[in-house]
Amino acid sequence: MTARKPAVVLLSGGLDSSTVLAWAAKEGFELCALTINYGQRHAFELEAARKVARAFQVARHVELAIDLRAFGSSALTAEIEVPKDRPAEAIAHGIPVTYVPARNTVLLSLALAWAETLGAFDIALGVNCVDYSGYPDCRPEFLNAFEMLANLATQAGVEGRGKFRVHAPLIQLTKEEIITLGLSLGVDYGLTHTCYDPTPAGLSCGRCDACTIRLQAFHKLNLKDPAPYA
Amino acid sequence: MTARKPAVVLLSGGLDSSTVLAWAAKEGFELCALTINYGQRHAFELEAARKVARAFQVARHVELAIDLRAFGSSALTAEIEVPKDRPAEAIAHGIPVTYVPARNTVLLSLALAWAETLGAFDIALGVNCVDYSGYPDCRPEFLNAFEMLANLATQAGVEGRGKFRVHAPLIQLTKEEIITLGLSLGVDYGLTHTCYDPTPAGLSCGRCDACTIRLQAFHKLNLKDPAPYA
Repeated sequence: MTARKPAVVLLSGGLDSSTVLAWAAKEGFELCALTINYGQRHAFELEAARKVARAFQVARHVELAIDLRAFGSSALTAEIEVPKDRPAEAIAHGIPVTYVPARNTVLLSLALAWAETLGAFDIALGVNCVDYSGYPDCRPEFLNAFEMLANLATQAGVEGRGKFRVHAPLIQLTKEEIITLGLSLGVDYGLTHTCYDPTPAGLSCGRCDACTIRLQAFHKLNLKDPAPYA
Repeated sequence: MTARKPAVVLLSGGLDSSTVLAWAAKEGFELCALTINYGQRHAFELEAARKVARAFQVARHVELAIDLRAFGSSALTAEIEVPKDRPAEAIAHGIPVTYVPARNTVLLSLALAWAETLGAFDIALGVNCVDYSGYPDCRPEFLNAFEMLANLATQAGVEGRGKFRVHAPLIQLTKEEIITLGLSLGVDYGLTHTCYDPTPAGLSCGRCDACTIRLQAFHKLNLKDPAPYA
């Protein structure tokens, strides 16, 4: 019996990253979940990440706090009003108001630091360029550039002990396809949290961009979203 | 009169990064100093960064805490013994025990996040491939790869509003050349902190790798290091 290869999986607790965790389990990786708290408004997403990590019996789960609010703002990290009731078509175009500067670069660099410490060469994340076409750091060319950087940046990469790979298994999938994949891999989407603006009790608003895209996908699949809504 | 262009300068409070801050001032940039506390053993380096930032009257100084100890260890961030009394020649070869996984990738990605928020396209840091040849993320090819990544990763880069540049003005300089440059630009090296293992009162040990390289350089220049030693 050979030991399973470890993979660092960026796990926010949302629908996409939870699906990626299930994908990594299916691929046979030893799951090392990394949750970065970059100063979100609410703790429900972190709680969701813990529940999902537990459900998939990850080998390790590190939560790392880094307060990107020190740099300024975006709707996800500061007190800007979250847009509501925008149609899905409007959400798909242009750079969203919820854009966080260099977010995926920061998340991947932290994943890389942990991967090198663990002796892991695989990093997986739930980026997707279908529903959020406006994020520059969700495109394949960005991920390829990061992969190249990772192999230049590290002792492990330079010494040729392995080759870092960035896995983005959802990158070309629609939200319906992501949900279909996740359900086939046993994801309980009732544990995941997507909403940008939940109630104090943790119920999703159902009206922000993230809720709109999620609800529309479940609706198209003729499924009921098991997450709790206000 | 045109406004000065902002630059994000990674400032640890050490000799190299303080020299880079002086270089950026000389180049006419508006100075935005970024100090990352990634879980160092002691606060003297942070205090040095504050003193140096004040001395150069930076426009902004952000200190950001991120505890990389969550990932595991290196001599800089954990309770591993700092090597002492190694000759400079031994220090220059191989990957140092004080290697921090993916450190410069993490630091640069955070600098990029702040730069994008500020509307800055220039990032400067004190990497050097002469004294620490063993660090893979101090090489020009790494910095070039990061520059490419930055322009793919960001809204500002993708929209062509500017082109991100990573400045590493010390990369080919010896420690003596760095000190000579810094002195010509008005750096007070008495404010800077280099030691890996200071006394509780903040005096430098004079025997760790960092102190050895620094002291040797001042000695070769026939200068007295103005920093306080035990």
